[in-house]
Amino acid sequence: MKKNLTLLTDLYQLTMMQGYYQNNSTQTVVFEMFYRKNPSQNGFAIFAGLHQFIDYINNIVFDADSLEYLSSLNIFSSDFLEYLKNFKFTGDIYSIPEGTIIFPEEPLFRVIAPILEAQFIESTMLNIINHQSLIATKASRVISAADGDTVLEFGLRRAQGPDASLYGTRAAIIGGCVATSNVLAGKEFNVAVSGTQAHSWIMSFESELDAFRKYADLFPNKCLLLVDTYDTLNSGIPNAIKIFDELKLKGLSNSSYGIRLDSGDLAYLSKRARKMLDEAGHKDAKICASCDLDEYLIAELKRQGAKINTWGVGTKLITSDDCPSFGGVYKLVAEKEASGNFIPKIKVSDNPEKVTTPGAKKIIRVYDKENYKIKVDIIALEEEHFDESKTYIISDHKARWKKMTLKGNTYVMKELLIPIFLEGVCVYTSPSVMEIHKYTKQEINTLWDEFKRLVNPEILPVDLSDKLYELKTSMLEEYRKDKR
Amino acid sequence: MKKNLTLLTDLYQLTMMQGYYQNNSTQTVVFEMFYRKNPSQNGFAIFAGLHQFIDYINNIVFDADSLEYLSSLNIFSSDFLEYLKNFKFTGDIYSIPEGTIIFPEEPLFRVIAPILEAQFIESTMLNIINHQSLIATKASRVISAADGDTVLEFGLRRAQGPDASLYGTRAAIIGGCVATSNVLAGKEFNVAVSGTQAHSWIMSFESELDAFRKYADLFPNKCLLLVDTYDTLNSGIPNAIKIFDELKLKGLSNSSYGIRLDSGDLAYLSKRARKMLDEAGHKDAKICASCDLDEYLIAELKRQGAKINTWGVGTKLITSDDCPSFGGVYKLVAEKEASGNFIPKIKVSDNPEKVTTPGAKKIIRVYDKENYKIKVDIIALEEEHFDESKTYIISDHKARWKKMTLKGNTYVMKELLIPIFLEGVCVYTSPSVMEIHKYTKQEINTLWDEFKRLVNPEILPVDLSDKLYELKTSMLEEYRKDKR
Repeated sequence: MKKNLTLLTDLYQLTMMQGYYQNNSTQTVVFEMFYRKNPSQNGFAIFAGLHQFIDYINNIVFDADSLEYLSSLNIFSSDFLEYLKNFKFTGDIYSIPEGTIIFPEEPLFRVIAPILEAQFIESTMLNIINHQSLIATKASRVISAADGDTVLEFGLRRAQGPDASLYGTRAAIIGGCVATSNVLAGKEFNVAVSGTQAHSWIMSFESELDAFRKYADLFPNKCLLLVDTYDTLNSGIPNAIKIFDELKLKGLSNSSYGIRLDSGDLAYLSKRARKMLDEAGHKDAKICASCDLDEYLIAELKRQGAKINTWGVGTKLITSDDCPSFGGVYKLVAEKEASGNFIPKIKVSDNPEKVTTPGAKKIIRVYDKENYKIKVDIIALEEEHFDESKTYIISDHKARWKKMTLKGNTYVMKELLIPIFLEGVCVYTSPSVMEIHKYTKQEINTLWDEFKRLVNPEILPVDLSDKLYELKTSMLEEYRKDKR
Repeated sequence: MKKNLTLLTDLYQLTMMQGYYQNNSTQTVVFEMFYRKNPSQNGFAIFAGLHQFIDYINNIVFDADSLEYLSSLNIFSSDFLEYLKNFKFTGDIYSIPEGTIIFPEEPLFRVIAPILEAQFIESTMLNIINHQSLIATKASRVISAADGDTVLEFGLRRAQGPDASLYGTRAAIIGGCVATSNVLAGKEFNVAVSGTQAHSWIMSFESELDAFRKYADLFPNKCLLLVDTYDTLNSGIPNAIKIFDELKLKGLSNSSYGIRLDSGDLAYLSKRARKMLDEAGHKDAKICASCDLDEYLIAELKRQGAKINTWGVGTKLITSDDCPSFGGVYKLVAEKEASGNFIPKIKVSDNPEKVTTPGAKKIIRVYDKENYKIKVDIIALEEEHFDESKTYIISDHKARWKKMTLKGNTYVMKELLIPIFLEGVCVYTSPSVMEIHKYTKQEINTLWDEFKRLVNPEILPVDLSDKLYELKTSMLEEYRKDKR
């Protein structure tokens, strides 16, 4: 599945590259990726997609076919096309590991490379990371609402194209789903697959009971029956109970049997179903629901006492229905002088939130030493050093009068960005998807519940180091003084 | 780009197939795809994705790798896996051509095939068609708001993964965009690509003026300058005017030059920019805007008299932001008896809108003979015949007292479903994307303006033939009488 995505880029990357090329711009620059706002009103996001981004970088190649196409556009010079022929990424990339909790404004990637290379990788990087981080974040919200119940990813048919289902499923598992209906995702990422039968199965037999019985004969150990084809309470559930009785007689019933509800009033039907199943002696029969679910509906159904213990979540998870895009951006933050020093760069804008934070940066995550909950994230310049035995006063960068004291020896600091590529060589091995899934769970545990609310979460402080704050303010003043 | 998507399916398709296989269910069935609700409150949708669906069918193959994976799941028998090894689609598929205007409840695909095959293709079909139809429909809304202005697709970095950008761009072009920033889409689909420079280009030079001049040197004939890096009115536009003056002196200015606004108050800035450019003698300089645009914002900016003539639309088009999924479904509608007759099938549900319309069906589109605007769509049984010289009375199937008289010889009828596969062989050649783009334009012209409103459109009548209505009602009565 390592596709060549080399031409999956915006044309302006190539026109700018030609400009730098013809201008002999060989300087090394620093670009950083960050995002401005959490999706779906969440208090945080989950970083995902690094593995596919690494595959992309490792597989960049302008093949003959691509070069011929670019040449046909009549905007590229033959010497530039010749340069592309041998194009390779030769720089350094630092990134946050997948499954990590992230917050707005934090540098998720730091790329240090010749300007042509650093510029080129932007569009594909953003495409991959924005997509998977979006879906991983949405999944973590659904998991939170399901409050310990099993959540399955069922979104293939409504995903935005094949990759959206494949990599969306990957991200959903990272965010907390335990299995998927998507067979290709199961194979590619070695995650559990799940699924039984559809309405068409039921309809293709003479009667519902026949259809159930036939299914139970084939899969006696995994007998989840879809009960809403004709009439859930008067036909579906009574017929399912008949089958479960038969399985019991044969000594075949086990914990993996039950019913699936796919329409109607799920709160009411699940409560009635639970009662009917229990009275028939099938207390361990599962009740699975799947009908346009999302975190809001799941939370509401649980509040109403719905007796559902497995949630199949499709459309609204795989598209992140209430917020279908993740706004990651990638900006130039510094440039290497002839002397070898990096000079910070800033983008000023008529929209204040579009002003960038200058300089090559890193993130220091500060945990409470006692309970390992996050206290604050500090964005600092790459060269800054911190010492856990010292006391620091951290100021909110949007309201400098709001301060937090980090008392020496009461906290633990962790740098989040780690090297992925050094001089073009990948120095990182991605964990398996299930390992990342496990890591995400641990990450979620580093937040107090207040930060995890689905609506109106508490906002974790993400602050600039004093040095970085001063750099940004002084550069902003400078630009506004000297209007060009 | 003809990827093998064979395993991109829901697990239950394979468990059901194994069931049919072991049950010796070889009967031929009819499945149809339809959708229930137009996306984004639109009055219609645009059908897209057929070409990729055809590629999918033509490339189905369970290779050794896939079979090994399926075998490892320990739920499939070896004889069933042996059957999959030689699996091929051998049935008939009828579809609507891409770019066609469609309405809820209409059969968009009719599949007639052995039940194992008809069942298998569901998930991938829905994935492809749902995605592209969604984005084509959204694009047609944006085009409608832009009211004749040029609209460019700029969504790569926010699309839901690589395919979502590639095929989303294809769909956006079908829906009416004239070019894209996406180079791979340009190459794959032979559509125009567009793009100039980003903020990083401007920031990588000593001054904005330097950056503009360097760009103009390189691309004097395609000189669109991004003016909002530092200060749009006081720096960006005056610097751009200097460059346009220089190009004019060199005799190089032509119709393909201008500015791009990417932030700030687009209504105000574009009006000021137009005035400044005009006063400097650059009346033919274009003003392009790109800043989280969608059809609502474009319509509002035009209402405010914004002087923008090219719209770069990204995130909200490529994800269909306000409605990121298209609810296409695929249902069993008939089954072949031993005698060879088709018996209609129905799915009853606790949700009335989930009740299906039974029988193999077709769509008859009825146009006014004088102006070729659509009067009504009639869903009829496949075997029904209509005669344009006859008078018909069509009843609204949700309110039978609402009737429309089609007077003989005043209307023209067209059957929308055409053969794509016959006995497994593709008998259809897809037009090019730009041909479909042109066809969509003609299609939009078959609707009166009232049906094209962005909000609260008039709803085109889609009715059932009397014969079909009677079949559906009698089957519903029958099912509710005889609760199983």
